[in-house]
Amino acid sequence: MQANLSAAQEEATRKAAAARKAASRLAVLTTEQKDEALGRMADALLERAAELIEANAIDLKRGEENGTAPSLLDRLRLTPERIEAIAEGVRQVIGLPDPVGRTVQAIERPNGLSIEQVTVPLGVIGMIYEARPNVTVDAAALSLKTGNAVVLRGGSAALQTNLKTAEILRSALAASAIPPESLQLIEDPSRASADAMLKLSGLLDVIIPRGGAALIRNVVENATVPVIETGAGICHTYVHEDADADMAVAIAVNAKAQRPSVCNSMETLLLHRRFAERGLARIAASMKEAGVELKGCPEALSLLGSGAARPATDEDYATEYNDYVLNIRIVDNLEEALEHIDRFGTRHSECIVAESAEAAGEFLDRVDAAAVYHNASTRFTDGFEFGYGAEIGISTQKLHVRGPMGLPALTSTKYRIRGTGQIRG
Amino acid sequence: MQANLSAAQEEATRKAAAARKAASRLAVLTTEQKDEALGRMADALLERAAELIEANAIDLKRGEENGTAPSLLDRLRLTPERIEAIAEGVRQVIGLPDPVGRTVQAIERPNGLSIEQVTVPLGVIGMIYEARPNVTVDAAALSLKTGNAVVLRGGSAALQTNLKTAEILRSALAASAIPPESLQLIEDPSRASADAMLKLSGLLDVIIPRGGAALIRNVVENATVPVIETGAGICHTYVHEDADADMAVAIAVNAKAQRPSVCNSMETLLLHRRFAERGLARIAASMKEAGVELKGCPEALSLLGSGAARPATDEDYATEYNDYVLNIRIVDNLEEALEHIDRFGTRHSECIVAESAEAAGEFLDRVDAAAVYHNASTRFTDGFEFGYGAEIGISTQKLHVRGPMGLPALTSTKYRIRGTGQIRG
Repeated sequence: MQANLSAAQEEATRKAAAARKAASRLAVLTTEQKDEALGRMADALLERAAELIEANAIDLKRGEENGTAPSLLDRLRLTPERIEAIAEGVRQVIGLPDPVGRTVQAIERPNGLSIEQVTVPLGVIGMIYEARPNVTVDAAALSLKTGNAVVLRGGSAALQTNLKTAEILRSALAASAIPPESLQLIEDPSRASADAMLKLSGLLDVIIPRGGAALIRNVVENATVPVIETGAGICHTYVHEDADADMAVAIAVNAKAQRPSVCNSMETLLLHRRFAERGLARIAASMKEAGVELKGCPEALSLLGSGAARPATDEDYATEYNDYVLNIRIVDNLEEALEHIDRFGTRHSECIVAESAEAAGEFLDRVDAAAVYHNASTRFTDGFEFGYGAEIGISTQKLHVRGPMGLPALTSTKYRIRGTGQIRG
Repeated sequence: MQANLSAAQEEATRKAAAARKAASRLAVLTTEQKDEALGRMADALLERAAELIEANAIDLKRGEENGTAPSLLDRLRLTPERIEAIAEGVRQVIGLPDPVGRTVQAIERPNGLSIEQVTVPLGVIGMIYEARPNVTVDAAALSLKTGNAVVLRGGSAALQTNLKTAEILRSALAASAIPPESLQLIEDPSRASADAMLKLSGLLDVIIPRGGAALIRNVVENATVPVIETGAGICHTYVHEDADADMAVAIAVNAKAQRPSVCNSMETLLLHRRFAERGLARIAASMKEAGVELKGCPEALSLLGSGAARPATDEDYATEYNDYVLNIRIVDNLEEALEHIDRFGTRHSECIVAESAEAAGEFLDRVDAAAVYHNASTRFTDGFEFGYGAEIGISTQKLHVRGPMGLPALTSTKYRIRGTGQIRG
């Protein structure tokens, strides 16, 4: 155990140090140099797709032997079409504006000091993620565009795929005269290697976890490196008494069932009593049609009639199902909806469906969440849907960045101060 | 031990929960309401100055009995003049623009969604600090102005002063119809209470440590709540071969000796060899006159002559003296200066003194630090000197805020999205 840990620490430290060294060279690259390398990365992925698929087959075979669920195997699988889509994603990053080198503010002080605040790369990004092989390419491309070096630590299930991907991307970097050391992949997929990364203050500037709740909790609880927390989403839709019933049904079904596995999908539907009396039956019917299993508060159960739903407990309200399951709770007023959201929400995405501008305004003001919606599905909380052209993840914390993270989330700032000999009195 | 820990956890949790409850009411206060309460806080401090001085006398007496150093006792001491200055600081916050409720961006999407990103308070701020009683008032005033609740945990040496200060400020809040629960002071000044705060994820949105290196290290290493790291400063001044000697001497002496105890003062002076040959003697003489003890690299020692300085070790280069001590190292070129700064700097404030615009440009571009200066003293890294009108601290991390923190550092954002029934396809 101790020996394992030491080897993991050694690999993580060595690779992070190499990335840090490369980072100082990345920070001064021009947009053109970075975009040229991104183009080579996309080309290399397509040219060497056969190698990638071969490496991926090894991971898939091992997954099958280990009895991995078909849905997870599908997530892991690379096909020529998927590789094309991944390469196309890299090309799209080329078209995005370079977030580095922008002047945030320019201050002229009475003493003659000229203070300019400019955007700079974060430095070295640590990314800890699970079995989706596209994250390796996405993270590499977004890090390069923002002038950051990156240390990737993917899941063991995708190890051969990730190793081959990193090899292809690094050779593309080398051909572009960009230090390939700026892209590091940890080859030890044990928990120890992730834990070692969490402690590399001074070498890593940030760690971004992408994955399930257990992975994210481990990172947040044990990292000494600053973390951008992503992902947990217990999202609500509150339907006010005066809501348009057609709109309420459409938004609720979309928020729950269009793609239940993602963080911006709805887990609990809050209905004003007067809306429930006229609209609950329609919503329940539409949810059933969409394959959604219902749980309800006592009042909802009694309105729905026996057998239509199971009782919802506080534990249910606190659960991110990521599945075709929905809690329905009836509330007396907006205030009670706000209290429920404050108690059970994860401050991700919350929605009110209402005709009343006053109720909507109060909801938009008072709900403490990254994204608060009036009359639209919570499923829109997404970097592409916001028009950012890329998404590194969805931050559920308040520091640095909140909500969908576009390229600027991977930058910091520095002050350049020009004087003529000023000293402090 | 276990019993102690539990009591500390109980107090921290209870007070943070009360602060969180109050935070939702603070977030919707108007600027006028907040400013009115700030005025009452300043008034109350002046009106009840005698009570404050009485409480402070208890702390001072205990400090004397415990053999506390005179410099620390002086830092702890409140006088009528100091209380006036503290109250005046609160009044200055009234005049600053309210950073909450600003529109950061407004996005209209092709599907008709209207996305507005607005600034909001962080929520609940945890502040862990040492014996300076003015921090209690500063933190309370800056938190209120930014709509945040705050949980304060000061040092044991200032406990009676802090208790009285908090009592005065809370009664001023109550008179302003602002929930006094928005200002919480932890009454247990043990290490256990600070440690308990570090784990209050979900109740505290950020912890800001203010104090010495050991305090900050403990917070960074053990917090699960996001941290804004402040303070550590190993700052350099590099004098290029073509520098104006008068300017170099003035800037170096100011950076080192104007106030050595603060984080933006210089610890190591890097001299280009050709500058050292003509300028080192003058700099050494001026430093001696300012009471600065010198350490030097072998070349500096040989240029200075025997007895003028002691040898500087790598450990010296890695030390934040915060005192009248300076390392002098001679380098062959700009590259060697950059390498030294990269190795030993804490990414706080760095300066080049040079006539060459090219050398200055390269230094400003390539040094990775919060503030990089050309021909000005590093002592200017300060919220007031930057014109921010307030300073919560100086961030040495890259996430969220870097360098001097003005009021906007205590805000986050949220997205308000208005639709007409949009669902995701």
